[in-house]
Amino acid sequence: FGSMQNVNKVSDVVVFGGTHGNELSGICLVKKWLSGPPLQSATCKVTATLCNPEAIRLCRRYKDCDINRQFTRVDINKVTNAEENLPYEVKRAKELFSQYSDYSGERIILDLHNTTANVKLCLIVEKPTDYFALHMCRYIQQHFSADFCHILLQGKSYGDVRYIAKHGIGIEVGPQPHGVLRADIFDLQEKAVKLSLAFLDKFNNGDIFNPCEIVTYTQFKKVDFPRDHEGNIAGMIHLDLQDRDWQSVSGSSMVFRTFQGDNVTLEDVVKIPDEIKDLVYPVFVNEASYYEKDLAFWLTKKATVALPILKLNVLH
Amino acid sequence: FGSMQNVNKVSDVVVFGGTHGNELSGICLVKKWLSGPPLQSATCKVTATLCNPEAIRLCRRYKDCDINRQFTRVDINKVTNAEENLPYEVKRAKELFSQYSDYSGERIILDLHNTTANVKLCLIVEKPTDYFALHMCRYIQQHFSADFCHILLQGKSYGDVRYIAKHGIGIEVGPQPHGVLRADIFDLQEKAVKLSLAFLDKFNNGDIFNPCEIVTYTQFKKVDFPRDHEGNIAGMIHLDLQDRDWQSVSGSSMVFRTFQGDNVTLEDVVKIPDEIKDLVYPVFVNEASYYEKDLAFWLTKKATVALPILKLNVLH
Repeated sequence: FGSMQNVNKVSDVVVFGGTHGNELSGICLVKKWLSGPPLQSATCKVTATLCNPEAIRLCRRYKDCDINRQFTRVDINKVTNAEENLPYEVKRAKELFSQYSDYSGERIILDLHNTTANVKLCLIVEKPTDYFALHMCRYIQQHFSADFCHILLQGKSYGDVRYIAKHGIGIEVGPQPHGVLRADIFDLQEKAVKLSLAFLDKFNNGDIFNPCEIVTYTQFKKVDFPRDHEGNIAGMIHLDLQDRDWQSVSGSSMVFRTFQGDNVTLEDVVKIPDEIKDLVYPVFVNEASYYEKDLAFWLTKKATVALPILKLNVLH
Repeated sequence: FGSMQNVNKVSDVVVFGGTHGNELSGICLVKKWLSGPPLQSATCKVTATLCNPEAIRLCRRYKDCDINRQFTRVDINKVTNAEENLPYEVKRAKELFSQYSDYSGERIILDLHNTTANVKLCLIVEKPTDYFALHMCRYIQQHFSADFCHILLQGKSYGDVRYIAKHGIGIEVGPQPHGVLRADIFDLQEKAVKLSLAFLDKFNNGDIFNPCEIVTYTQFKKVDFPRDHEGNIAGMIHLDLQDRDWQSVSGSSMVFRTFQGDNVTLEDVVKIPDEIKDLVYPVFVNEASYYEKDLAFWLTKKATVALPILKLNVLH
């Protein structure tokens, strides 16, 4: 779907829940669709799948390693099934990869996630040039009030499960504690999935999506907690920052408070280049699973992206 | 400290953090007191201790089993160190039991916990006859606004760490996702601990605590989630109940919504005796660690308890 490519009818959608085994809203939605009336679309085949069953059974992010970092051609191909002691998630990633990667039609992946951060509805796309996915995000976004739904660009692939199809979006909803299911978050994630399918039906039916500008946030810098000489955290997210994902920060913004009570500003821990200093927005503030990744929050840079017209077989 | 007993000067306080290894505010407070200026009292010795170091290292509730169910004389004594494959938490409970249980002075345990439920500050005492602990709770409670701090009676011992001293309170603070540290929850728990020590100093210095009545909530019934034939949850806490710990419910209150969208009332799942029907209050609504215990929330019964006068050596 690059800007010079054809955009064909989407024939297949795979919805993954439980890529992380303790993020319950995607898991319970997939279980709902598998056990009751299935998730359906008028114009394409829809499959709901549990991505990491063993982690789901344990109600942990993963059993051996984060499956959402294993989906790269290099990693998938360098291991063989004969290898001893292959981490469970590598085996499962290989399995999913071989199951899905040779599809000749147009397939879309929806990957359902939760976070303890107050992101509300966050739609994740890898590249700012994936105009098809960004049109889909914009369509979803328009069904929510201002500042409720944001579009996050990763800037690069992390080897996530969306890699097994040409296109996909991560649907990240929070705040929800891991291991907890909240009805409000469940409903929000279901609404986002259904809007995604509604968009695909409109696209498949020939609807025109006009050129437009969208606001995006691109991850550019990880910020870690204050730590002691043993690597233990020695401070916490400042009350000024807690729950304030997607709100602008400057160098003088308080971002941490040490256990002893000292405030830490953003410029104490990160050098922000002058040219983007008014465009810096934190996201994934105080996400539980990122403590072990030495990550207290991501800094993103706000930018406008111009989308070309989108219509079946037309994107220019 | 039964109503006919002497109440002696309190000489020793042990503050446990990390009884559950993913409840970060107690863990980080204890680490703060161990690495920086220690927690102190003017009138008694104070020790801050990490209760379950291996679970803390893993950032999980426990390694092998819940340590806060192991502290009973029966369980502690029936196992010997020579036994193979003794669960880590049983070994650690034995260790703490032998370290603390033969103290001849008056010792108080403060056991610090977090929950994903919206309990705000919840002070947990085993029995309604532990007037000393309840006077301490009332003292703490008076420093918060109405409906912010509640007193929960377990009614029976669960074999928790408070068992190793004659008296203790659980200081449960939420909502906080497990594996996350929030500054507001950290501050609230620190304030509750410091108020506990302030109470003990006043008591040790001879202050009089007058007879009074306090409002308590006694756990009487566990309520489980709706489940399918395989034991998987098939519904979630209703939006009417989510975040509404300590708010009265009746038989017609909506408590669950199934994944298919059907509402479930309290009387659909529990028979409430007529004589307490206006006194029923849910607590620990949607606590993450209780999913595996088949527990969606506790029902408690609200009751007033009359406390006798309390003064050094006087309780009658």
